[in-house]
Amino acid sequence: MSSTVNSSNDHDDNHVQDQESITFPLLRRERSPINSSSQVAIVGSYVCPIESLDYEIAENDFFKQDWRTRGKAYIFQYIFMKWSLCFLIGLIVGLIGFFNNLAVENIAGIKFVVTSNMMLASKYGFAFLVFSVSNLVLTLLAAIITAFIAPTATGSWYPRSQGLPERSGRACVNTPVTLRALYCFVKRMFYLCSSSNLGIYLGLICWYCSCLLNVQIVGSIFAVSSSLLIGKAGPMVHTGACVASLLGQGGSSKYGLTWKWLRFFKNDRDRRDLVTCGSAAGIAASFRAPVGGLLFALEEMASWWRSALLWRAFFTTAIVAILLRALIDVCLSGKCGLFGKGGLIMYDAYSANISYHLVDLPPVLILGIVGGILGSFYNFLLEKLLRVYNLINEKGVAYKIFLALSISIFTSCLLFGLPWLAKCLPCPSDTSEQCPTIGRSGNYKKFQCPPGHYNDLASLIFNTNDDAIKNLFSSGTDSEFQYSSIIIFFITCFFLSILSYGIVAPAGLFVPVIVTGASYGRFVGMLVGHHTSLNHGLYAVLGAASLLGGSMRMTVSLCVIILELTNNLLLLPLIMLVLLVSKTVADAFNGNIYDLIMKAKGFPYLETHAEPYMRQLTVADVVTGPLQFFHGIEKVGNVVHVLKTTRHNGFPVIDEHPISEKPVLYGLILRAHLLTLLKKKSFLSTPEPVGIEAFTQFSAVDFAKRGSGNFDNIEDIHLSLEEMELFLDLHPFTNASPYTVVETMSLAKALVLFREVALRHLLVIPKTSGRSPVVGILTRHDFMPEHILGLHPLLVRSRWKRLRVRFPQILRFF
Amino acid sequence: MSSTVNSSNDHDDNHVQDQESITFPLLRRERSPINSSSQVAIVGSYVCPIESLDYEIAENDFFKQDWRTRGKAYIFQYIFMKWSLCFLIGLIVGLIGFFNNLAVENIAGIKFVVTSNMMLASKYGFAFLVFSVSNLVLTLLAAIITAFIAPTATGSWYPRSQGLPERSGRACVNTPVTLRALYCFVKRMFYLCSSSNLGIYLGLICWYCSCLLNVQIVGSIFAVSSSLLIGKAGPMVHTGACVASLLGQGGSSKYGLTWKWLRFFKNDRDRRDLVTCGSAAGIAASFRAPVGGLLFALEEMASWWRSALLWRAFFTTAIVAILLRALIDVCLSGKCGLFGKGGLIMYDAYSANISYHLVDLPPVLILGIVGGILGSFYNFLLEKLLRVYNLINEKGVAYKIFLALSISIFTSCLLFGLPWLAKCLPCPSDTSEQCPTIGRSGNYKKFQCPPGHYNDLASLIFNTNDDAIKNLFSSGTDSEFQYSSIIIFFITCFFLSILSYGIVAPAGLFVPVIVTGASYGRFVGMLVGHHTSLNHGLYAVLGAASLLGGSMRMTVSLCVIILELTNNLLLLPLIMLVLLVSKTVADAFNGNIYDLIMKAKGFPYLETHAEPYMRQLTVADVVTGPLQFFHGIEKVGNVVHVLKTTRHNGFPVIDEHPISEKPVLYGLILRAHLLTLLKKKSFLSTPEPVGIEAFTQFSAVDFAKRGSGNFDNIEDIHLSLEEMELFLDLHPFTNASPYTVVETMSLAKALVLFREVALRHLLVIPKTSGRSPVVGILTRHDFMPEHILGLHPLLVRSRWKRLRVRFPQILRFF
Repeated sequence: MSSTVNSSNDHDDNHVQDQESITFPLLRRERSPINSSSQVAIVGSYVCPIESLDYEIAENDFFKQDWRTRGKAYIFQYIFMKWSLCFLIGLIVGLIGFFNNLAVENIAGIKFVVTSNMMLASKYGFAFLVFSVSNLVLTLLAAIITAFIAPTATGSWYPRSQGLPERSGRACVNTPVTLRALYCFVKRMFYLCSSSNLGIYLGLICWYCSCLLNVQIVGSIFAVSSSLLIGKAGPMVHTGACVASLLGQGGSSKYGLTWKWLRFFKNDRDRRDLVTCGSAAGIAASFRAPVGGLLFALEEMASWWRSALLWRAFFTTAIVAILLRALIDVCLSGKCGLFGKGGLIMYDAYSANISYHLVDLPPVLILGIVGGILGSFYNFLLEKLLRVYNLINEKGVAYKIFLALSISIFTSCLLFGLPWLAKCLPCPSDTSEQCPTIGRSGNYKKFQCPPGHYNDLASLIFNTNDDAIKNLFSSGTDSEFQYSSIIIFFITCFFLSILSYGIVAPAGLFVPVIVTGASYGRFVGMLVGHHTSLNHGLYAVLGAASLLGGSMRMTVSLCVIILELTNNLLLLPLIMLVLLVSKTVADAFNGNIYDLIMKAKGFPYLETHAEPYMRQLTVADVVTGPLQFFHGIEKVGNVVHVLKTTRHNGFPVIDEHPISEKPVLYGLILRAHLLTLLKKKSFLSTPEPVGIEAFTQFSAVDFAKRGSGNFDNIEDIHLSLEEMELFLDLHPFTNASPYTVVETMSLAKALVLFREVALRHLLVIPKTSGRSPVVGILTRHDFMPEHILGLHPLLVRSRWKRLRVRFPQILRFF
Repeated sequence: MSSTVNSSNDHDDNHVQDQESITFPLLRRERSPINSSSQVAIVGSYVCPIESLDYEIAENDFFKQDWRTRGKAYIFQYIFMKWSLCFLIGLIVGLIGFFNNLAVENIAGIKFVVTSNMMLASKYGFAFLVFSVSNLVLTLLAAIITAFIAPTATGSWYPRSQGLPERSGRACVNTPVTLRALYCFVKRMFYLCSSSNLGIYLGLICWYCSCLLNVQIVGSIFAVSSSLLIGKAGPMVHTGACVASLLGQGGSSKYGLTWKWLRFFKNDRDRRDLVTCGSAAGIAASFRAPVGGLLFALEEMASWWRSALLWRAFFTTAIVAILLRALIDVCLSGKCGLFGKGGLIMYDAYSANISYHLVDLPPVLILGIVGGILGSFYNFLLEKLLRVYNLINEKGVAYKIFLALSISIFTSCLLFGLPWLAKCLPCPSDTSEQCPTIGRSGNYKKFQCPPGHYNDLASLIFNTNDDAIKNLFSSGTDSEFQYSSIIIFFITCFFLSILSYGIVAPAGLFVPVIVTGASYGRFVGMLVGHHTSLNHGLYAVLGAASLLGGSMRMTVSLCVIILELTNNLLLLPLIMLVLLVSKTVADAFNGNIYDLIMKAKGFPYLETHAEPYMRQLTVADVVTGPLQFFHGIEKVGNVVHVLKTTRHNGFPVIDEHPISEKPVLYGLILRAHLLTLLKKKSFLSTPEPVGIEAFTQFSAVDFAKRGSGNFDNIEDIHLSLEEMELFLDLHPFTNASPYTVVETMSLAKALVLFREVALRHLLVIPKTSGRSPVVGILTRHDFMPEHILGLHPLLVRSRWKRLRVRFPQILRFF
C-alpha cells in the first residue's frame, strides 16, 4: 500500500493533484487563497466541469504492442479517415454557415421589408409595432432556447485549444447534430422504463445532445435577426468546433451509437486537431474568408502549431470555400429569397485606381491611434458590463430572459427613434439604384421622409448588419451620408453592441465591431474631407480595421480576413499600418477581448509567455503535497481507495522492492486507464509481474478516450471484498515516458516545456538520490499566477509584479 | 579532477558531445557508420562549420543577478530597440529589394531593347552577338564574384531557423551592408601595418565583410539579368536574413565596431527572431507580398512560433510594403528608366467578372494532378543534377566558372534559336498596344517576322521573367499565343531552370517555377479550349500554383503569395484546390525541394515529427559516451585540458563532496562561458564556493553571444603553471535549469521536447539513484536518423523502416 493513501481527506481537498478536474470556477472561488476579483464567474450559476486535454501520447507497453501488431493497412485507413473527417467537417460547417446566412438574411429581410412598406404608407405606429414585436419575439425565442436548453451557449465562445471547455467538454454540450439528438430521444424513451440508473445517465446524455441542434444554430439565427447588435462569427466558430468534436468522438460506445470507423480518433491529440480545423471552418464559413479563418484558428486558438495540422486545416477551409462558392452560384439564379446577389458577406470594396500618397498618412495614423483607444475602451466597458450582467443572470432564468427582453425593447425603441433625428436628403439624380428603396435592402430608405427624399440614418439602421457594412464600405457614395447621421450611428453601435453581448443568446463580437469601426472610419473620412485621395468607403474599411485591431488585437489573421472581406489587395499596406498602430496603442491599456472574457470567466488559461517573477522561483516552490502514487504491482483495494478519496487524474507509478532494488520511477498512469482495469477485473492473485501477453482480454478501444461527459466513475464499479485483496499489474498500462523536470528547474522554463509540448501532467523529480523518485506533479493549475502568488504573496509586492500590474501588456513582447 | 578527462582522445573524436560544432558534412561523411548516399555534399569543397543556436535562456545566478539589478528603463529600452531593429531591417531589405528589381529591369531591359532594335533592322548576326556576349559577361561577373568572394552564396539559401548555417553562421558571411564593408576596409589598411596577428584576424573579418555587398545583391542582379532562368527571391531571402543577422550581432567588440545600443541582442534567441523577420522581409520585398512573406517565414522557416514573433515579423513586412508603395509612387512619374509602370512584380490578373462552374472543376483537377507529378519530377531532376554539378564544382574555381559560362552560352544559343521555330502571327487589329513592340517590353516582339507580324515565342523569351509571367497571366490574350510556342516555352523553362540553378551564382527557384508553371497552365487552358469559362490567363495562374505546390509543397504561404501576386481573391477557392491536389500528388513521390537540397548538402536538419521507429527506442539507446563533466568548483588545469581535448559546447556541472553530500546535478555550463571565465582569470586559491558578489569584474556583456565566426579559442588563452593549479567557481555561471529527460524516456518524445522547446543540449539523467546524476547529453546529432540507424542497424530492416522508405512522405501527416 502506498504510504500516502492514509493522508486525511482534508489535505486531498486542499490540494488536488489535477485541479483541472474540479468544478471551476465556483469551487475555486471559495477555496482560492487569494481574493482575486478576476475569478468572478460570468456564466453565473453554471458550474463548468473542466477536464484538460492532453497532447501527450500515453506510450505504455500495451500501446506499443498494439502499435506493433497493426499493419500497414491501418495507417492508410487512419490517414484516409482523418482526411475524410476534415472533409466532412468542412462540408457540414460550410452548409451550416450558408444556411445560417440564408436564414438571417431572409428573416431579418422580411421584417425590414414589412416595416419599410408600412413606413412608405406612413403607418408609423404600425411599423413600430411590427418592428418591436418581431424583435421581441425573436429575442424571446433565442433567449428561451439558450437559457433552458444550453445556458453555456451564451455569448461567443472563442475556443482556445488548451483543452478548455470551449473546445472540449463544453463544445459537445451544444454540438449541433440533429440526427444524433433524435437518436438519443428515441433511445431515451426506450430505456427510461427499463433501468433507473442507466436511465438517469441516458437522460443526461440526451439532454446534452438535444440542446445542440437548437442552441447555436437556431439561437444564433433568431438573435442576429432580432436587430440586436450581435454577430454570427462567434457562434459559427463554436458550431464548427462542436461539429468537429462530435465527429472526433465517434459516437458513444455506451449507448450503441458507435461508428466503428471513427475509433481511430479516440484520443485528445486527434480531437484537438479536429477541433482546430472545425473552428477554422467556422470563421471561413461566416466570412467566406478561408485563409483568414485558418490563420485565425492558428493565431488565436491552436496551442500547437504543426505543419500537418496546418495542411489539414487548410484543406478544411478549402472545402468550405469551394462549397460556399457553389451554393452562391445557386443563389445567383435568385432562388434564395432576400439573400441578395449572393455576396455572403463579401463587402467588395474593389476600385481599380486606388492611389494614396504621403499626405494620406497623417489622417490614417490618427485614425489608427484613436481606433486603438476606442478599442481598448470597448474592451473595458464590455468587461465591466459583463460583470453587472452576471449579477443579474445569477438570480435565475426569469431574470436572464427579462434582461434579454428589456435590451430588445430598448434596442427597438432606440433604432426606431433615432432616424427621426436625421435630416431628409433629396435623392441623387445620377444613381442607378432605386430611390427611395422599396421592398429590399438598399442605400435609400424613405422612413419618414417626403417622396423623392431618403433618410440616410434609416438606411443604415433598417438593414442587416451585413448590408449596413456594405453600404458603409461602398465607394462613390461620399455625399450620401451626413455628419450627424454617421456619428449617431457610430455611438449607437458602439454602446448597443456592448449592451447586447452579455444577454442570454449566442452572440459574436466580430460583426458589431466591424459595423462600429466602419462608421467611425467613415466619420474620420468625412472630417478629412477633400484633403485626402481616399474615398470615404476606404476610410470605413480602415476604421473597421482599427477598431478590430484595438479590440481583438490579432495581426495577421485580421489583416487577411479584412482583405478577404473587401477583396482589395491594393489597400494592404494601409491596413497593415492601421492594425499595427491600433494594436500598439490599445495594448498599453488592457488585454485583448478574448483574454478578458476568458479571465473574467475564471478559466485556467495558460499564457504562452512566462511572467518575469517565475524566473526567480523553482518548480519546488510551487509543488504542493501530498503526492499520491501507486506501486507497479498494487493491491486492488488501495487503488479503489485512492480513486475514491481523490479526484486526481494522473498518478506516478513507482517500482520498489522486490521488483526493483531501489525505488524507481516507472511512469504515469491515468485515472481513466485505472478505471478500465478495475472494470475488466483482470486481477492477479500474487504480487508478481506478468507480461503484456497476459492481457489479451484488452483491446485498444478499451483505453480509448471517451467523449466528454461520458467517463467512468469509480462509484459505479462494484468489487467484492475478495477482489479487493487481489493485485493489479499496472506496468503494461503505465505511460513509461512521462515528461519530467528536476525540482531545481526554474518555473519559467518548466512553463515553457508545459506549454510548448502541451502537457497535462509534469512530474517533478528530486535533485538528490535517496528520496522518493518523484516529489510532485505539476498541472496547469500550478502555473496559474493566482496559485503562485497565493503561495508566495511577497512576489506581489516585488518590483516585477508592480511593473507587470502597471504595464500589463508591454511585457508580453519581452 | 573529473573522472573522464583521462579518456583517450580517440574516444573523444569518435563521439563528439555537441556534434554540431564539427565541420559538416565532409567530416561526417568520412566517419559516418552508415554509407548514406544522401550525405554527399553539394557545396563541394566548402566545409561548413555549423554551430547550433539555442532558444534556451541560460538561467544562471549571474544572469538572474544582472536581471534583478536592471531597472524598468532597461526593459523599455530593450523593447524599443527590438522594434527599431525590425524597422531598420524592413527599411534596408525593402530598399535593397527595390533597387535589385530596378537594376535587373534596367540592365536586362537595355539588353533586350538593343537586341530587339537590331532584329527590327534585320541584323540577326549582330543581335545574337550582343545577346550572347552580354549574357556571357553578366554571367562571368556573377560567377567570379560568387566563386572568389563568397562561394557560399551559390544557389539559394532558404534558411530554416534551427540554427543552421543558412541563417546563422553562414548568413553573416555574405551580409550585404556596404557601410560596414567600407569601414572594415579602412580599418584593415590601418591595422595591417601595426599588428600581424590582429591583422590576420582583421583581414579575415574584412574579407568576410567585403564579400557581402557584392555577392548576394550584385551577384543576383548580374545573374538574373543574364537571361539565365534563375530567380531573385532566394537571394533576397538570404539578403534579408543577412541584414537581420548583422544588425542583431550589433557589430564586433573585438574590432571596436560595436554599437552599444545593440548589446541587448547578443543572444541566440533574439538573433533567431530577428533573422526570421529578415527572411520574411526578403520575400515581402521580392514579391511585394507582405502577408505571404510573413507566412512563408513562419511556415517554412521558424522553428518556434510565438505570437510576439508573429507581430514583429508582421511589423517588418508592413514596413517593406509601405516603403515599396512609396518608391513605386516615385517610379510612376517615369524616373526609373525601363522599370515600367511600377508594378514591381505584381502580376495584376484582376478581372471583375470571374465566374466558374462545376464544369471547370475536372480540367482544374487534372491540371493539379499533372502539376504535382511535374513538380515532383522537377525536384527529382534538380537533385540529381546538383549531384553532377557538385562533382564538377569540386574540382576547383576554374571548373565552376567554366560550367557557369557553358550554361550561359548554351542558354543564349537556345533562347536565340528557338523563336525561329515559331510561326509568325499577324498583329491583331483591335489591340491598344503597339505591334510589333519597339524599344520596350511588350507582348508583340517582331524578331524575324515581316512587318505587321509578331513572334509569340520571342515575346516570351526576349523579356525578363517578370514580364513573361505578366504576359502569360494576362487576360484577353487567348488568341495571342500558339500551341507550339507555349509548349516549346514550357519545356525550355522546365529544363533551363534546372540547369541554371546549380551554377556558381546566387539563384532562386521561385520565379523560374512560376514561369514554367504559368506556361504549363496556359497550355492546359488552350487544350481545354472553349469547354471552360476561365480564360487562359487564369489557367496560367492555376498552372503556376500547381507547379509551386508540387515543388515547394507549402500551402498557406504559397496561397497568399499567389493571391498577392495576382491581386485576385475571387480565384481563391480554385487556387486552394489546385495547391491541395498538387501537393498531395507530389508528396507521394518525394520531399519538398528545400528538404531535398538541405539533405543533399548534409545539414543536420531536424524534422518536426518523430519517425515511428523512435517510439521503440529509449534515449539510453542512442546516448553514446564518454561523458565529460565538471565539478562545481573545478581546477583550472582540468578545465583547460577538457576544453583542449574535446570540442563539446556544453558540459554538465556536478556537485560532489564536500559541497554536497551526494553527487547532485547542478546544471549545464557552456564552452563560451568557460572561455570567458578563463580569459578574465578570476581564479580562487582554495576550492571553496564564493558568492555571486565576488564576480564584480564581470558584466553581462562579457557573456553575450558573439557574432558567428567571432568566438574565443582555447588555444589563444595562455595561463601560467601557477594559474593552472588554482580553482574556478562555476556555480554562478552554470545554467541551473537545464532541460532533462530520464533515460527510459522514449526517443520520440524526447525529440518532441527537443524540437518544440528548440534546445541545443538535453541532459539524460538515470532512472535509479546511486549512479552519476547525469548519464549523457543529447544534441541535435543524436536525433538524426543516420546516427540512430547506425547504432541500431536492425531497425533499417524493420517493417516500419521499410514502410517509411517506400512511402516517405505519407507518414509525415501521421
